[in-house]
Amino acid sequence: MTVVELIERKRDGGRIAPAELRALMAAYAKGEVPDYQLSAFAMAVFFRGMDDAETEALMAAMLESGSRLALDHLAVPRVDKHSTGGVGDKVSIPLAPLIAACGVAVPMMSGRGLGHTGGTLDKLESIPGFRTRLSLAEAAAQVERLHCVLIGQTAEIAPADRRFYALRDATATVEAIPLIAASIMSKKLAEGLTGLVLDVKTGAGAFMTKLDDSLRLARTMIAIGERHGCPTVALLTDMDAPLGEACGNAVEVVESVELLKGRGPADLREVTLALGAEMLLVAGVDADRAAARARLERTLASGAALEKFRAIVQAQGGDPRVVDDPEGTLAAAPVRSVFTAERAGIVQRVEPRVIGRAITALGGGRTKVEDGIDPAVGFLIHARPGTVVAKGDPLATILAPDAAREAEARAALARAISLGDEAPAPRPLVSHRITARGVEELPVAGAS
Amino acid sequence: MTVVELIERKRDGGRIAPAELRALMAAYAKGEVPDYQLSAFAMAVFFRGMDDAETEALMAAMLESGSRLALDHLAVPRVDKHSTGGVGDKVSIPLAPLIAACGVAVPMMSGRGLGHTGGTLDKLESIPGFRTRLSLAEAAAQVERLHCVLIGQTAEIAPADRRFYALRDATATVEAIPLIAASIMSKKLAEGLTGLVLDVKTGAGAFMTKLDDSLRLARTMIAIGERHGCPTVALLTDMDAPLGEACGNAVEVVESVELLKGRGPADLREVTLALGAEMLLVAGVDADRAAARARLERTLASGAALEKFRAIVQAQGGDPRVVDDPEGTLAAAPVRSVFTAERAGIVQRVEPRVIGRAITALGGGRTKVEDGIDPAVGFLIHARPGTVVAKGDPLATILAPDAAREAEARAALARAISLGDEAPAPRPLVSHRITARGVEELPVAGAS
Repeated sequence: MTVVELIERKRDGGRIAPAELRALMAAYAKGEVPDYQLSAFAMAVFFRGMDDAETEALMAAMLESGSRLALDHLAVPRVDKHSTGGVGDKVSIPLAPLIAACGVAVPMMSGRGLGHTGGTLDKLESIPGFRTRLSLAEAAAQVERLHCVLIGQTAEIAPADRRFYALRDATATVEAIPLIAASIMSKKLAEGLTGLVLDVKTGAGAFMTKLDDSLRLARTMIAIGERHGCPTVALLTDMDAPLGEACGNAVEVVESVELLKGRGPADLREVTLALGAEMLLVAGVDADRAAARARLERTLASGAALEKFRAIVQAQGGDPRVVDDPEGTLAAAPVRSVFTAERAGIVQRVEPRVIGRAITALGGGRTKVEDGIDPAVGFLIHARPGTVVAKGDPLATILAPDAAREAEARAALARAISLGDEAPAPRPLVSHRITARGVEELPVAGAS
Repeated sequence: MTVVELIERKRDGGRIAPAELRALMAAYAKGEVPDYQLSAFAMAVFFRGMDDAETEALMAAMLESGSRLALDHLAVPRVDKHSTGGVGDKVSIPLAPLIAACGVAVPMMSGRGLGHTGGTLDKLESIPGFRTRLSLAEAAAQVERLHCVLIGQTAEIAPADRRFYALRDATATVEAIPLIAASIMSKKLAEGLTGLVLDVKTGAGAFMTKLDDSLRLARTMIAIGERHGCPTVALLTDMDAPLGEACGNAVEVVESVELLKGRGPADLREVTLALGAEMLLVAGVDADRAAARARLERTLASGAALEKFRAIVQAQGGDPRVVDDPEGTLAAAPVRSVFTAERAGIVQRVEPRVIGRAITALGGGRTKVEDGIDPAVGFLIHARPGTVVAKGDPLATILAPDAAREAEARAALARAISLGDEAPAPRPLVSHRITARGVEELPVAGAS
């Protein structure tokens, strides 16, 4: 069987046997299959999809191309949360220490921002000195000691996925559900977890804009997790508007610290607690959601979560003053200005992609993998869909490197934030809960 | 506009502006766009297609990447015939000298066999000494002198097409109608023609198995030709069974010489004369088909076509004895055996792809571009759909390199040739004639 024949079969809607897919990816990882064949294959998958067995085989091949975090000897459960990404999504930063402070190990491997979405690694690196590039051995040692580490995908983890993802990014083949699922799960299963919670973001600012796609992605990832003995639960959460107020890098760390201090925007707090409760449930720490929520509230109120964050920052070389005086410790933007309402009305939409791209234009995001970023820039978006405003009310704060880019950012805000006279239909913050047993639609009550 | 954005737009069903496509192919020709991006783009085109303006822009970019045959100073019309390929399709070999002998210049650029189809260059090279690799200047000089040259795509002709075609061949993206049309026409327009006749083969042994696809391909190529001032006509001819008896390389040259001597299989003669008449019409040599057919018959009967072939063989370094004693001049297979009917009945099908692949298995075709071929092997297929046979009648002759491969070839023939009791429905040899003005369905009368 030649690679061309595999491409042709997938192109024509046929099935690739698991052994064929594993052989294909093993040969690719060894450099024996050229990129131009794998990119054509990925585009065929974009149009034809993959069934569960194919997706599993692809995932397994990428997982087996590298090493795993060796944490089996730990007595505590090991749970991670993965988000499909959005604008203002800093949930990982407060959530990881919060869960670790509840006695669950959180070996969290995050990504960088690309396109309109931000990345947890970039946000963490706005803390002076913070190292996200740890070796697997260092990471394992820190999990043992602190129950938490916040790192990037190391060279040892799923190298075939890393190479394939870069290729997909350069060939417009990222947005294929089986490829997304296999890529995420190959990294998550390498963390040696006993449970996994997925935050599948849905809406205008998410990779998945349609509910059906989100459900399909969630089900695909859950099936993989369960097959590998890693109980997996997904929440579908809203990404039709930025999450929280802070959108950028340093500014999102500030908001994360606020949350750990029991403050912060209500929507961010709600999504964080909802995901945290699922983590405690999948870890077996609590038996029901009410008990898990209560434990999370207590751990925030006691300061234990904040102290865990301080310990992690310190362990990874970051300046621990970020905990007590975040704004004084992190880089500040030279230009700070307020964007106000031109008329009285009700906020209709805050377009997350427009905000995300405006952050990139300010220097706070990447268009190419090798781009550097400016941690200080971004926005505080005070307006949310449904907010009633008077003329002149502040809708957002701009954090810009200079006046020219402040003006550009202002123009972007004018496009992103629309005012009207009717209240927009409310969207639930957390709309669905998906497990191996099925899909549960959640009441809109979760909305802030 | 980045290449990724172009791929994404095509993937999502959008249109690429002509200037964007020309820039893409120009950058690809210069090596600035990697193969892995162009293969993903080609796969997106496979699924989404291209409109006429896109196809034209792609064609023009590939045409302009190289040189053209400089023949504008010739007083005579310059016409070529291009076939989309099949099994036993040796039409070019007798047709080119036949038309040249009618006073029309035929600067014919052919291809090599790949997959189940044979290639005119491979067949010609079974003539000892015959050179198909001429420079553009040599080719032009020979056209001037003899009105005919039989060569391969030179390095100067459409190098972007050559590189893109090799990439498509390795990534299962050959079978996209706009890509096929742009590739063929970029080479044909580089020949500096005043007219072009296309033989679009249709049926189980052709690249286009469906009538609709053949019509679409023909219309697309005709539109390009007309836009470039090259009047183009297409005939749809049958490739549901091998054409003629000879299938292989040397054996097809033998049959071509037979045809030039006024003999040879009726189906091969009919297709050759039908295409030849179109060439004379598009060249303006004759005003109607009856006159053109009569001229072709005369030119065969007089021996002028055969003498033109002799002159071409001699000019290109080939052994001219092939004209008088083809079987004595060309390589003969060590094993020659007859395959007979196991029962009395009527031949139902002769599967051309099975025959084509069996030639490759005998060593007479390629699975990879770099493979060498054995000119001596192949088949003489005496059976045709509708032939009434008695038990023991010869259905085919096998020309094999050794006993083991003779046995394999025999097994392939048993799969390829099916016998039954009812006469199969007749298929017209030449089913449609397509011009810029429309499609004309032809009567079945053309069948042998």
